[in-house]
Amino acid sequence: MSYRAPLQDMRFVMQELAGLDRLASLPGFGDTGGEVVDAVLDEADRFASDILAPLNRIGDTERARWQDGVVTTPPGFRDAYLRFAENGWNGIGCDPEYGGQGMPKLVTTAVYEMWKAANLSFSLCPMLTSGAIEALMLRGSDAQKQMYLHNMVSGKWTGTMNLTESQAGSDLAAVRTRAVPAGDGSYRLTGQKIFITYGEHDYTENIIHLVLARTPDAPEGVKGISLFVAPKFLVRADGSLGARNDIRCLSIEHKLGIHGSPTCVLSYGEQGGATAYLVGEENRGLEYMFIMMNAARFAVGLEGLAIAERAYQKAVQYARERIQGTDIAGGKDKVAIVRHPDVRRMLMRMKAQTEAMRAVAYVVASAQDAASRHPDAGERARNQAFVDLMIPIVKGWSTETGNEVASLGVQVHGGMGFIEETGTAQFFRDARITTIYEGTTAIQANDLIGRKIGRDGGRALAALVQEMRALDVDLATLTGADAQRMRALLARGVAALERGGRHVAEQYGKNIRAVAAGSVPLLQLMGVVCGGWQMARALLAAQRRLAADGGDRGFLHAKIATARFYADHVLVGAEALAETVIDGGDAVLAMDEAAF
Amino acid sequence: MSYRAPLQDMRFVMQELAGLDRLASLPGFGDTGGEVVDAVLDEADRFASDILAPLNRIGDTERARWQDGVVTTPPGFRDAYLRFAENGWNGIGCDPEYGGQGMPKLVTTAVYEMWKAANLSFSLCPMLTSGAIEALMLRGSDAQKQMYLHNMVSGKWTGTMNLTESQAGSDLAAVRTRAVPAGDGSYRLTGQKIFITYGEHDYTENIIHLVLARTPDAPEGVKGISLFVAPKFLVRADGSLGARNDIRCLSIEHKLGIHGSPTCVLSYGEQGGATAYLVGEENRGLEYMFIMMNAARFAVGLEGLAIAERAYQKAVQYARERIQGTDIAGGKDKVAIVRHPDVRRMLMRMKAQTEAMRAVAYVVASAQDAASRHPDAGERARNQAFVDLMIPIVKGWSTETGNEVASLGVQVHGGMGFIEETGTAQFFRDARITTIYEGTTAIQANDLIGRKIGRDGGRALAALVQEMRALDVDLATLTGADAQRMRALLARGVAALERGGRHVAEQYGKNIRAVAAGSVPLLQLMGVVCGGWQMARALLAAQRRLAADGGDRGFLHAKIATARFYADHVLVGAEALAETVIDGGDAVLAMDEAAF
Repeated sequence: MSYRAPLQDMRFVMQELAGLDRLASLPGFGDTGGEVVDAVLDEADRFASDILAPLNRIGDTERARWQDGVVTTPPGFRDAYLRFAENGWNGIGCDPEYGGQGMPKLVTTAVYEMWKAANLSFSLCPMLTSGAIEALMLRGSDAQKQMYLHNMVSGKWTGTMNLTESQAGSDLAAVRTRAVPAGDGSYRLTGQKIFITYGEHDYTENIIHLVLARTPDAPEGVKGISLFVAPKFLVRADGSLGARNDIRCLSIEHKLGIHGSPTCVLSYGEQGGATAYLVGEENRGLEYMFIMMNAARFAVGLEGLAIAERAYQKAVQYARERIQGTDIAGGKDKVAIVRHPDVRRMLMRMKAQTEAMRAVAYVVASAQDAASRHPDAGERARNQAFVDLMIPIVKGWSTETGNEVASLGVQVHGGMGFIEETGTAQFFRDARITTIYEGTTAIQANDLIGRKIGRDGGRALAALVQEMRALDVDLATLTGADAQRMRALLARGVAALERGGRHVAEQYGKNIRAVAAGSVPLLQLMGVVCGGWQMARALLAAQRRLAADGGDRGFLHAKIATARFYADHVLVGAEALAETVIDGGDAVLAMDEAAF
Repeated sequence: MSYRAPLQDMRFVMQELAGLDRLASLPGFGDTGGEVVDAVLDEADRFASDILAPLNRIGDTERARWQDGVVTTPPGFRDAYLRFAENGWNGIGCDPEYGGQGMPKLVTTAVYEMWKAANLSFSLCPMLTSGAIEALMLRGSDAQKQMYLHNMVSGKWTGTMNLTESQAGSDLAAVRTRAVPAGDGSYRLTGQKIFITYGEHDYTENIIHLVLARTPDAPEGVKGISLFVAPKFLVRADGSLGARNDIRCLSIEHKLGIHGSPTCVLSYGEQGGATAYLVGEENRGLEYMFIMMNAARFAVGLEGLAIAERAYQKAVQYARERIQGTDIAGGKDKVAIVRHPDVRRMLMRMKAQTEAMRAVAYVVASAQDAASRHPDAGERARNQAFVDLMIPIVKGWSTETGNEVASLGVQVHGGMGFIEETGTAQFFRDARITTIYEGTTAIQANDLIGRKIGRDGGRALAALVQEMRALDVDLATLTGADAQRMRALLARGVAALERGGRHVAEQYGKNIRAVAAGSVPLLQLMGVVCGGWQMARALLAAQRRLAADGGDRGFLHAKIATARFYADHVLVGAEALAETVIDGGDAVLAMDEAAF
């Protein structure tokens, strides 16, 4: 077994924690009844397990290759992509007006988790296309929508996001690519973009590039950046392909991981200027990017979860098969290493954190559905505030945790984990990009303390703390040591989060450098406590189901044990994180810079 | 700058924390006065920086290669090795009777840190030779010593340790390689060994393999394993080389990291049996291995420290050079990223943990010198107990922490960190083996709770706790917020360690599986608190030197700020670890194994 979607846990989280049933009542989500969703998940599992997962290691070893501007993807990837598009997977979350299936975010989230777990490198192409689709949906003209969206939704064409330049990484204000009006309504782009995922490939006949650039009279900095669309092949009015655009792939990167996906250097305008069209209004490109940022960051957060799940499955398999040593409690028989307490501890840590990440991500996905579709404006706003607050957590905490889990996966394998043929090292390498792209963990933390806490004086966070606290009433009704321990540790964790968040809200305007120095610890604190909150809800749901005699008892007991583990081994760290947030800022800043 | 030894910190730790001056009073360490040690460190820095460090990336990209049983090391490695041996570095810690320089462990520790930081793959060959030398010194016959040791100490020949087989990794009791008496006093070995570092290479004319194997009538399990010496080329009585032995390198591993060092599969006896000679007594091989284990584990612990230092230096350099964004506190100028609070936090975390690891390792090195050379038997025993207790910490905690620091190094580089050409990804990959080989972290933790705490009822740990507590008298004399905060957090950390240790000592005989489930958290707790103890001592020494107007004020102020950071960001986690040790064991074991 290489990978199977964890359907039982996915369904548990969707139903018990993320309110799948409530989605059906939202307008526009008519066909999301249990059977439809079940069928989608089953089909997605088959595609992920049978088609994508077996290609994952091939992608790692064979890699995307570049020669003379042409990029060849690893063997099997192109065929898999064509089937993927043919089966309609590319547009499951897209607007039906352009051929999409308009599935709720909660459902697409579970499906995307599968693609990412099965084959992260493969999954990046649809993810980037999805971002480009969203940009055109949001700000493209009707003509642009008609010209590009049908083929992008169907997967006939793919999309890219061209943001980064060598001097403009986290700081997009430094973008230098130039866009000069050609006089016919189009622009000519010149400049070089780096780190362009699937900027060139052999899947499809066309690639639609979304590009940040500056017009000649644009103001300096963030307010002078515009968004353009520039297809690899120009598209005629009748939809047929015209001339090749002046865009060339100069090279692809030699990376630590995700070898299957080409990360391109794209040169625009070597022959005078690449033809491009303004999307939306001039000088508002960065603003448009920010609108799309939630979706992109959420998607990368899912990568942390997905790699963790994949690494966990592989580690469990190895731990059951590998015979080594005897039981520390006695006996002469050699045992599978899953019997050894520390191997169990590692597996439990992998499992507990993976399930916590899944629960948090799916709950946030469900809130995105409510934020966009709920008939009540107040409910939409409330959900949107929660989503905005949580995006940096889903991105930052899940990717940091995904790295930890992938590393534990290597450790479970012992010496074999270090051997590339074993395959678990790939997850460890692939995971490493996730805390970096779409904004590093520090960028997420900055967003958290600034736009999400500082700006509203901590109100959204206070509302979240209150919601977490409200759970205590239910937890108090539960019996048993597991529930009591979880209840106690969650209360301490929530109090710690409240202290840390209040400190940030109060100090943000006064001592911003010290607050920023504690921003990543705060993000971690919030992730750890939100994970605990969801695991507590899971424990509650599992105990209730058991009491009502409903469901797979083994699964429910395991959920309770896993929640308890999370409390004792992860949530227990919340208070120290809060202390670092509150008292640790000065220590970051005290030393002379020259002394590093 | 690729790497420079951190000589100022090394000297500070040696002098202020590890009692370098006291070494001169120990018998046999006559020429370790300040000037001699200074000269050795300066020379070693030059060799590490100028010769070894530039080869590190070449080793990674060109890798050791295997063809038809012949291993070719990466370009430049062989020449570097020959100079290394020629300059006498191979034997600096060895017995002068065989041509070594007999330097104290404290001095060789600093020197080894440099080799490992400059080029981990290169350093493994002398490290393994050193282990083989120690085995022969300890248990070899006089004839064996005469035959092998001079050439191994000089570096003319190298040595290996052949322990692992595919079914015998952590569990060496499962070794199957057979050793049959040949009737002439020698044995014939047949079997296959894996993961043999530098088991074959092109540095030297001969390789001396130390091999674990079973004689025909050996009892089952650990008590039936013997140690043999088997040279690649047989050595005639006059010291000249004879026939090639029946040992073949079948392949080398394709690994996540340390690509420059060949990790070999060695086949013994394909043509009837490799000629080998028993070392020491039959069936005592594992016992001999355990005698050498402290040195080997200590050496791997240094690798965690060394890679952390290397990753830190590279990250600092990048953070000073990379211009991106503006100061969060205001201003329009673009700044180097070292100005951003979270980049500083990451660099401080790297620096603080690296310095803490160095201090702990050097203090343990110094105790090894006292344990072997102190004229007073009580002092020798006291130091040996401390060393024994601390070896799993130096190995387990330093390598886990080294991995964390190497990962932070990638993060500081942002997107460039994921690009292999940048070089920091290599440290991240190389570091990953260190928590695995010479006993995984779990194996160290098992040693800690069993042989080091359970066996003596926690006495050695209680003595350590008492020693740490005694420091409070001195800390209480210090003024300033940094010292007060460190004092408070160290007191809490020591109390947490005492609670955790006492729990383990009390429960070890009663509930061994639950105690084992908390063993790695205990190891981490002990590492974190020992690091805090040494950083507190460093803060104390720095404040005293400043008060006495002695030394580089910038360095001393930085040491104080770094200690304060360690307290607020690392030591603060001790209490949660103790809680996990005490309360978290059951949660590891509760779930049905089938539910994974």
